[in-house]
Amino acid sequence: MERQEHVIGKSVKRVDAFEKVTGRAKYTDDLCGKEAYVAKILHATVAHGIVKSIDTKEAEKIPGVVKIVTCFDVPKIYFPTAGHPWSTDPAHQDVADRLLLTEHVRFYGDDIAAVVAENEVAAVQAVRALKVEYEELPFVLDVQKAMEEDAPQIHDTYPNNILKHTTIRNGEYEKARKEPGLTKVEGWYQTPTVQHCHIENFICYAYMEQGRIVLVSSTQIPHICRRVVGQALGIPWGKVRVIKPYIGGGFGNKQDILYEPLCAYLSTAVGGRMVKLDVSREETFVCNRVRHAIRIHIISYVRKDGTFAARKIECFSDQGAYASHGHSIGAKCMNCFPQLYPCPNIEGDSYTVFTNKSVAGAMRGYGIPQAMFAMESHMEDVAKAMGLPSYQLRFQNIMPKGFKDSFSKNVNYYDTFRECMEKGKKVFRYEEKLKEFKNQTGEIRRGVGMAVFWYNTGVWPISLETSACRMVLNQDGSVQVQVGETEIGQGADTAFAQMAAETLGIPFENVHVMTVQDTDITPFGLGAYASRQTYMAGFSIHKTATLLKEKILDAACELTRQIKENMDIVNGKIVRTTDGSILMTMEELAMEKMYSLTNNGHLTAESSLQIKNNAYSFGCTFAEVEVDIPACRAEVIDILNVHDCGKLINPALAKAQVHGGMSMGIGYGLTEHLIYDEKTGKPLNNNLLDYKLSTFLDHPGLQAEFIENYEPTSAYGTKALGEPPTCSIAPAIRNAVLNATNVAVNEIPLTPHILFKRFKEEGLI
Amino acid sequence: MERQEHVIGKSVKRVDAFEKVTGRAKYTDDLCGKEAYVAKILHATVAHGIVKSIDTKEAEKIPGVVKIVTCFDVPKIYFPTAGHPWSTDPAHQDVADRLLLTEHVRFYGDDIAAVVAENEVAAVQAVRALKVEYEELPFVLDVQKAMEEDAPQIHDTYPNNILKHTTIRNGEYEKARKEPGLTKVEGWYQTPTVQHCHIENFICYAYMEQGRIVLVSSTQIPHICRRVVGQALGIPWGKVRVIKPYIGGGFGNKQDILYEPLCAYLSTAVGGRMVKLDVSREETFVCNRVRHAIRIHIISYVRKDGTFAARKIECFSDQGAYASHGHSIGAKCMNCFPQLYPCPNIEGDSYTVFTNKSVAGAMRGYGIPQAMFAMESHMEDVAKAMGLPSYQLRFQNIMPKGFKDSFSKNVNYYDTFRECMEKGKKVFRYEEKLKEFKNQTGEIRRGVGMAVFWYNTGVWPISLETSACRMVLNQDGSVQVQVGETEIGQGADTAFAQMAAETLGIPFENVHVMTVQDTDITPFGLGAYASRQTYMAGFSIHKTATLLKEKILDAACELTRQIKENMDIVNGKIVRTTDGSILMTMEELAMEKMYSLTNNGHLTAESSLQIKNNAYSFGCTFAEVEVDIPACRAEVIDILNVHDCGKLINPALAKAQVHGGMSMGIGYGLTEHLIYDEKTGKPLNNNLLDYKLSTFLDHPGLQAEFIENYEPTSAYGTKALGEPPTCSIAPAIRNAVLNATNVAVNEIPLTPHILFKRFKEEGLI
Repeated sequence: MERQEHVIGKSVKRVDAFEKVTGRAKYTDDLCGKEAYVAKILHATVAHGIVKSIDTKEAEKIPGVVKIVTCFDVPKIYFPTAGHPWSTDPAHQDVADRLLLTEHVRFYGDDIAAVVAENEVAAVQAVRALKVEYEELPFVLDVQKAMEEDAPQIHDTYPNNILKHTTIRNGEYEKARKEPGLTKVEGWYQTPTVQHCHIENFICYAYMEQGRIVLVSSTQIPHICRRVVGQALGIPWGKVRVIKPYIGGGFGNKQDILYEPLCAYLSTAVGGRMVKLDVSREETFVCNRVRHAIRIHIISYVRKDGTFAARKIECFSDQGAYASHGHSIGAKCMNCFPQLYPCPNIEGDSYTVFTNKSVAGAMRGYGIPQAMFAMESHMEDVAKAMGLPSYQLRFQNIMPKGFKDSFSKNVNYYDTFRECMEKGKKVFRYEEKLKEFKNQTGEIRRGVGMAVFWYNTGVWPISLETSACRMVLNQDGSVQVQVGETEIGQGADTAFAQMAAETLGIPFENVHVMTVQDTDITPFGLGAYASRQTYMAGFSIHKTATLLKEKILDAACELTRQIKENMDIVNGKIVRTTDGSILMTMEELAMEKMYSLTNNGHLTAESSLQIKNNAYSFGCTFAEVEVDIPACRAEVIDILNVHDCGKLINPALAKAQVHGGMSMGIGYGLTEHLIYDEKTGKPLNNNLLDYKLSTFLDHPGLQAEFIENYEPTSAYGTKALGEPPTCSIAPAIRNAVLNATNVAVNEIPLTPHILFKRFKEEGLI
Repeated sequence: MERQEHVIGKSVKRVDAFEKVTGRAKYTDDLCGKEAYVAKILHATVAHGIVKSIDTKEAEKIPGVVKIVTCFDVPKIYFPTAGHPWSTDPAHQDVADRLLLTEHVRFYGDDIAAVVAENEVAAVQAVRALKVEYEELPFVLDVQKAMEEDAPQIHDTYPNNILKHTTIRNGEYEKARKEPGLTKVEGWYQTPTVQHCHIENFICYAYMEQGRIVLVSSTQIPHICRRVVGQALGIPWGKVRVIKPYIGGGFGNKQDILYEPLCAYLSTAVGGRMVKLDVSREETFVCNRVRHAIRIHIISYVRKDGTFAARKIECFSDQGAYASHGHSIGAKCMNCFPQLYPCPNIEGDSYTVFTNKSVAGAMRGYGIPQAMFAMESHMEDVAKAMGLPSYQLRFQNIMPKGFKDSFSKNVNYYDTFRECMEKGKKVFRYEEKLKEFKNQTGEIRRGVGMAVFWYNTGVWPISLETSACRMVLNQDGSVQVQVGETEIGQGADTAFAQMAAETLGIPFENVHVMTVQDTDITPFGLGAYASRQTYMAGFSIHKTATLLKEKILDAACELTRQIKENMDIVNGKIVRTTDGSILMTMEELAMEKMYSLTNNGHLTAESSLQIKNNAYSFGCTFAEVEVDIPACRAEVIDILNVHDCGKLINPALAKAQVHGGMSMGIGYGLTEHLIYDEKTGKPLNNNLLDYKLSTFLDHPGLQAEFIENYEPTSAYGTKALGEPPTCSIAPAIRNAVLNATNVAVNEIPLTPHILFKRFKEEGLI
């Protein structure tokens, strides 16, 4: 008797493991034609100004130069770049403030001209030969200075450079904070500008075919890219075709439309010839997107029992020069506040503010790593101020079981937060370590710290959530799966294959996920962002697999003349459920349907599903650090993340996802910071030598544990795990340093520079 | 008020015109990765023999050589190569007689070893350095000699080298031919071995991805190719993915599986690395496929009034060394006989016979050009013998209106044959010319001749006929169309776009046909052969467009709350039919469906349709020649084809199709012939210098006329036009030469060599 082998929950090997390990996987550059022209961009060398002229004479003389396009040549069509689903409501559309090339330079590195040449050398030489005359304008780099009355105005329509200001007014903050006996705890917390540093820099190439633009791009969001390129070029969106091959990481940077519109435009400028536009690591740092540096101000009024009477939060989100994702990151940063430690009286103000710096956009965590650094550092400060154990303070105040958010309708179904904390505490031996590290003196001290986070899954109800899937049955009973959600290194394709195999009842190795998205043929899905993929694609995979299974069983019914209700697909075989006997194999069925002379018909299924759900994902970090006080150096000795992302589709991949996020979080907490020269606005460390990216050598073995509470809203019980692992690392490290040294450092990364300043202030050195 | 602009029947510009004219269209070689290894094949230099050994030592020493595979290494899995739909009935499957490489050499050029190298030079050098020891066997080149008792046996299981023998026994031939007063007319007619000579030689490349084989190939039949490669390698068919880019012609040669299995195997032999295998023109002539040289013997017993009392036909089809399409071409050649000029008493025997020559397979016309040369030459001979005008003899005997074939169920609905003849006679001024050319003497003489043909559309009821289609609606109201039927230069994509636009009610330019087939995602369709594409794909395009239109109107109903029955799509707009007012554009509808926050769902449609129809396509050729008797040279002065292929989807493309077929027919009639050395079996003119391919310079302006009788079984009224134009050219030329010189030449091509022999025999020189 045939029993179904379950594949959900098994650590099957990644479908792309061999290709990636052996270097066989084809990325954008591997696919680009030998005949492609090469484009290079001229970036501004002032932080704010107006381009008065660009002299192209010398550049044009360089052999191999095909076309030079300057900011004076391009169409004046403003377009947005954020990788959000389109809204048909203009009020909810992203800010359209970009031009392909700009006369008004708003940051050091802004795009002002481009060269198309027969080869890279000629293109680079020509870019260097362009002579630019600027009218320089005063610039501003600090987010709060940018809000001052006399600050330079970066965009005409935004007084005080405030892109948007949103508020929270829950209960009566002003009244509540006057309750007798309250302790006021206040802190300012500063997070840095960091960059995603995916392995594969942005690259795309474009050409025209049959009057349409074909773009092959290393993007997380092919279907959104199609739309934005259409907008930027002022052409119908169906005239753009976007193909997304394997990509070498994105982390949200490739959830913005970067240079696809410019590349497409350049192709049209050379008669539709293929043009490749890739950027260097230096350009990636400055001219792509960065994570918002957010300055956060929190005031808590705390009762003696550790409960909150009133709380206030202010967020100043440094948007850089253009709107990109706009206020949504600043808003998300603030809006997680009332849900984390619910309090009836909360006042919040979040400002997203233009500065003359690199454009901030989506980056793994989307405002939450910043929020968690501030909020979880603050929790530790509150605990210290109140003389309470911080673990207990959190445990007591944290979002309780049954909590339901009025906006997202998210529910904490299982009291998961506390389950994660309890598991982490035990596995990490947190209490034992706390005791062990008490009353240290000496130059080298250890400490432990923790932090929690929650995260949403997808963007509903803020934006559209929908996914679509198509499946095609082959002669041998294997199946292709196509979805619009993109494999960007995280292992999504493997999870999709597991889901499809599970619902269809066929072996995992018989599912072939089409990793390349092509907007002309891939069912409309929105891409990789908001930790949505496994959750959202799961719905349409489930629906489509169910549809295909119905069709297969209909065919089985037709071919075997047994009643459908007594049949099921088990391990790729049509089984009679009443006695478990095998009626036919899927291969036999598929062959008959494909080649029957009497009743032929190929079997495919396609469906889309709009999702009006979201789901809380939870977790926490426990960190142990060793601080070398004279060297002003903190090192992570041990670190553990505990997550509840629902049912694990693939435990090994889930672990790997957590490890990656933790590594990124360690860099965020300890070393990474993109720095600008205050006198010129020039980025000073936009390279991987001077920008201290966290690598394998910089952190200890990473531990990941899970609480697998089946998410009731989910097709396969799963929910967000893409971004969560990076959210609570930095505050856990900061709190561990506080535990070790009794010094609260409210600015990350905790570099020797920062630690030196604080240790000096606190008299440790 | 919006009125539908009809696009069916309009000569819209080819969708791929710009790409092809500018050289932008990407063919297999354009897509092949720079990193690909190059494979070259060692071909046998004996016509029949056994490979005793292959010494690879010297070849292995050549720098860059990666792998050498000989006939002793490959798996002994016999596979078929014909591009026929699979049959689940073993009795109807194609003959499996090929190995990837063979120890038993059956023709000069057979494949015995292959080299994979880092570059082409190394691969070629290594092939040359291989040392082969043969045991030579006697060989046979003539089809009837191969049937003799003592002929060399080419395949073990086929006595007298007869692959298959089929018969016709209608009425009582032996009795009927004894009717008093009959005239017996007998002739032997010989057609040559010719090659397709498509511009792009065969090329493919293969690599492995996720444990599967990906093949990019210049094939007419991607879905069939997947199956055959699976068979040849002994792996599940779903483990093979075939992608077909633009291809530079096929004419049936690429309806065989040529070197795809070998290329795939070689990739597996180098660990799945990309391997490219392309062949030279010389190899194309010898080692691909050729058109069957068929020797045909016809005897007619004719009454004084020109009616037939009894007829007999014998066909000897030269299969060459391997079965390929097997007997189907020999059978088709014979089986058209009773339908062309119906006669109650017919005896027929068709033999398909192995010889030690290049393998014959499908080539434009599939037995009918050979049949028409014999039958229509014979008709002229009958007319001459009876002293009747040949036009009248044909007119009187030809398949009448209402004729229904008992096997295919094809019906001559309109008396089309005679309509075509009448139109041709008039347009060509046939009667006037006949008169004009009477009683010529002198060295230069002119003559006119004609010939007719009929042709089927597709392969039903012999094999499976099915097609499938998928359509995807874009944001701007444009639509992608995917079908398994392949653009191979004939303009199919343009016709598909016209059909889709017509049924959907959207502008032609808003239909984007996916020209690249990919067996992983393209709906299951069978490819380009049997002049089936426009007819067969038409069914599923019509069905799918109707389905998509229904979905669109359902959405329009939901969005406008007007009743669906009162709505239609007209020029890409949703129109209320009761007053012609525009309710919304397709763009508005698509945007709302894609981005609605309340009821989102992407719109696509997919369907397949098994077709149990076939359709007669008819036509005729009128030719005028000038014969230089001393020079033994015939030149075509004027030539006209008249076709009834039903409704013309695109008259300009239909004309172009006819022109191409006529050009090919002129070559067939006058110059083309692949010749073998009788002593060695070596092909003597397998190159484009010595093989006299008909080109633009070799023929006059080509005239094409049409009778547009709407085919009642067809989705758009259309039927076969791919192969028909080449079917009746050669006999019309031969009959014109007869008219000019009174010399009947029963062997084509009518080269000076042949004419010299015949003119000498007839005493003209």
